Amino acid sequence: VVSGVLDRIRGVVGPKGFIDEPEALAPYLVEWRGLYRGAAKAAVRPASTEEVAAVVRLCAEAGLPIVPQGGNTGLVGGGVPFEDGESIVLSLARMDRIRAIDPLNHTITAEAGCILADLQKAADEHDRLFPLSLGAEGSCRIGGNLSTNAGGVGVLRYGNTRDLTLGLEVVLPDGRVWDGLRALRKDNTGYDLKHLFIGAEGTLGIITAATLKLFPKPRQVETAFIALRRVEDVMAVFARARAASSDLLTAFELIPRFGLEISIKHVAGVSDPLAAPYPWYALLEVSSSQTETSLREALEAFLAETIEAGLVADGVIAASGAQSQELWRIREAIVMAQNHEGGSIKHDVAVPVSRVADFIIEASEAVARRLPGIRPVAFGHVGDGNIHFNLSQPVGMDTKAYLAHWAEMNRIVHDAVAARGGSISAEHGIGRLKRDELRHYKSPLELELMARVKQALDPGNLMNPGKILAPEGSQNGRRAAT
Amino acid sequence: VVSGVLDRIRGVVGPKGFIDEPEALAPYLVEWRGLYRGAAKAAVRPASTEEVAAVVRLCAEAGLPIVPQGGNTGLVGGGVPFEDGESIVLSLARMDRIRAIDPLNHTITAEAGCILADLQKAADEHDRLFPLSLGAEGSCRIGGNLSTNAGGVGVLRYGNTRDLTLGLEVVLPDGRVWDGLRALRKDNTGYDLKHLFIGAEGTLGIITAATLKLFPKPRQVETAFIALRRVEDVMAVFARARAASSDLLTAFELIPRFGLEISIKHVAGVSDPLAAPYPWYALLEVSSSQTETSLREALEAFLAETIEAGLVADGVIAASGAQSQELWRIREAIVMAQNHEGGSIKHDVAVPVSRVADFIIEASEAVARRLPGIRPVAFGHVGDGNIHFNLSQPVGMDTKAYLAHWAEMNRIVHDAVAARGGSISAEHGIGRLKRDELRHYKSPLELELMARVKQALDPGNLMNPGKILAPEGSQNGRRAAT
Repeated sequence: VVSGVLDRIRGVVGPKGFIDEPEALAPYLVEWRGLYRGAAKAAVRPASTEEVAAVVRLCAEAGLPIVPQGGNTGLVGGGVPFEDGESIVLSLARMDRIRAIDPLNHTITAEAGCILADLQKAADEHDRLFPLSLGAEGSCRIGGNLSTNAGGVGVLRYGNTRDLTLGLEVVLPDGRVWDGLRALRKDNTGYDLKHLFIGAEGTLGIITAATLKLFPKPRQVETAFIALRRVEDVMAVFARARAASSDLLTAFELIPRFGLEISIKHVAGVSDPLAAPYPWYALLEVSSSQTETSLREALEAFLAETIEAGLVADGVIAASGAQSQELWRIREAIVMAQNHEGGSIKHDVAVPVSRVADFIIEASEAVARRLPGIRPVAFGHVGDGNIHFNLSQPVGMDTKAYLAHWAEMNRIVHDAVAARGGSISAEHGIGRLKRDELRHYKSPLELELMARVKQALDPGNLMNPGKILAPEGSQNGRRAAT
Repeated sequence: VVSGVLDRIRGVVGPKGFIDEPEALAPYLVEWRGLYRGAAKAAVRPASTEEVAAVVRLCAEAGLPIVPQGGNTGLVGGGVPFEDGESIVLSLARMDRIRAIDPLNHTITAEAGCILADLQKAADEHDRLFPLSLGAEGSCRIGGNLSTNAGGVGVLRYGNTRDLTLGLEVVLPDGRVWDGLRALRKDNTGYDLKHLFIGAEGTLGIITAATLKLFPKPRQVETAFIALRRVEDVMAVFARARAASSDLLTAFELIPRFGLEISIKHVAGVSDPLAAPYPWYALLEVSSSQTETSLREALEAFLAETIEAGLVADGVIAASGAQSQELWRIREAIVMAQNHEGGSIKHDVAVPVSRVADFIIEASEAVARRLPGIRPVAFGHVGDGNIHFNLSQPVGMDTKAYLAHWAEMNRIVHDAVAARGGSISAEHGIGRLKRDELRHYKSPLELELMARVKQALDPGNLMNPGKILAPEGSQNGRRAAT
């Protein structure tokens, strides 16, 4: 039966859209860091919404599960198949057209396979900004960004992918197409269905296109690097920065002294921009689409005022684009630098912005109690309450022995997150990697509600089964296969 | 059976929370403009989430439908019961506490019955802005704002109620309580359930509390009134205003000459701020939380530049708070002034921002073809693509005869909206008033998806049945009763 279906699918997408040669198929099966290596009957690459719909219809009839895949740059294994080989991968990569740009409406409509950088470029060519920006932007695809509600740089000002979305086109699990490609700022006509599909990691349907918000292009950007005596001051400084900048902050990133030190040590071109050492730093960016009044003046006043108030110890405002890049280099060097310090156990968590400091202090103490000498590097988008709480191994410890503590450290850190009403996955999603951790921290009622939504939209459980939610009747995964 | 349930409900909420005396009950049954006069077995006023949960549990057991009600200021009849008298009204009015304010997290947590103005005041007392603002703010309640995804003034800058919401507490149709009161900017842990309940008009559960975003308080506000030669220029002017103001626009309101004229004629204190008449005007407001640099300078440069470009004919920037109020008075006087011009057939619609002008032109021509002499007053939040397309009757026509054209005019206007991918309810929701119109314009597939969500969360159809969606098996309403 399955081979008959596969033949019919091949008939829909043509030979260019159907990959089952093991070598050609391999890249579709492997999580890009090698965390998971799955199997699939084929990778199917439809070229249009109609082809996606036809493929999904055939799969629905045959009970063949589908793993939707974008740029395969996800961090939780959501876009790769399980090892059982019972599903197909449906890649959106060929659907990479920009369907429309409407500068006066400040919107762009793009197909799911459109690469994020191409979307940014198209907006730029029309004198507009598409603000979603993240490390993988040269290869991730907007459908994946939507399905994971991607964050990245600029969330502080412009919001997550969800906040940037006005409308969606979705192929439903039965192969019908929901045309929800609205380009409206206001629409109170019943349930807002788009929010179901955004962040659902392909478990409720396949997003094939989206209408997204654009913004005026920044004409002024100012960057500052400020030093703090105590991490407890960081959120008061942030609140003042919001007010002092007319809420035009596009970044507010926390950096610990240890992060700066290892960056200086291991990464070329990084230096300490300040004369004396301080335990904590913040990197601020402010931007504006007008040039009539100066952001720099406002930033200088903010710095003077917070130093006067004793909240900020010292600081520098970049005098040029080159100097701004140097400051950003510190922030960007941290992850690379950590690789040189042995094993790193990572967390992508969020807490209320007001709880960032006490979370960092308590979680750092808790992991050190368990493993003396462990070196926390708490950094990241604290303006969003989002902390990359990465733990470098104790000096001299065996790396493998250290990494064996991964689950244990996760539990300690996530307990501290949960105690503050936080999130164990701020940006990256759940996928396969955090599915069981989610079952530990989400209330049974919320898991039940999610399962009811899944059941309502995908009663056959054919859309990316076993991601986010474990299938019904299973305690630990997707039947025996996981 | 029902009277037994009512007794048990009375036992839960106490005599102060249970109203079945006809006179005391009456205000809960009547839409505030008198559009609908319903009936109910009682109005129940729980004082806590636990009491709401207990009441809902009893109703679920007995199959007793519930109409949740906030401030009863809605505009589509969503909060009042049908005439059949088979339901209870559940008023959230006694749950009016502010549970928490966290200025550093820029959040406030309030119970559903909290009056919007009280929420604004509480934020203000902590040097923060809660930006949701609308005409009924002195009596509407935040639970109703959430359930209708209220818009109002300030959406342009701060978004709809949906965009202001970080977390919800909801009593589900079976009486269990979903604690989704998160205060996080980032949380990618599965389906975002809060978006189901926001804008659902009480049909999926009862919102009992919410955690909402706060913002830095504005310290500078500038208002301008500009004249346009052609309505076609309005959106280009808007796009330039966004860029020239660093996207700090808090209002961009369209006003037609006829609207200004009737306001001058009928409302005291309104005058033409410009020397010569022009066919169209826009009212702009820009605000900022910092005082270091001047918004006024940016606004003056914008005005000079758009006049130079031939897009703006003339304009004035308010020199004082009093002058700003005079300019706003023009905008606010329009509805009142229209009342003096006989019958008005109203529409609350949205189109893509780039389609505002061609919508206004085409819809105005279409209604005039059907009814020569009809006087369109197209005004409102065009920065959101939201147009209050109100039609004053032809001079001298009998008002009753004119208003008999209501449904016919709706159809003409809504067809022009639909042709542009617009919304037939931008701000006000669907409720009872627009339910059948929704069935005409939404795709059957989208209605089906909405019904599946409803079925998944409220299988007994006890939560505000017959609002937004007609019940299954019914073609035209809630069984025979409607």
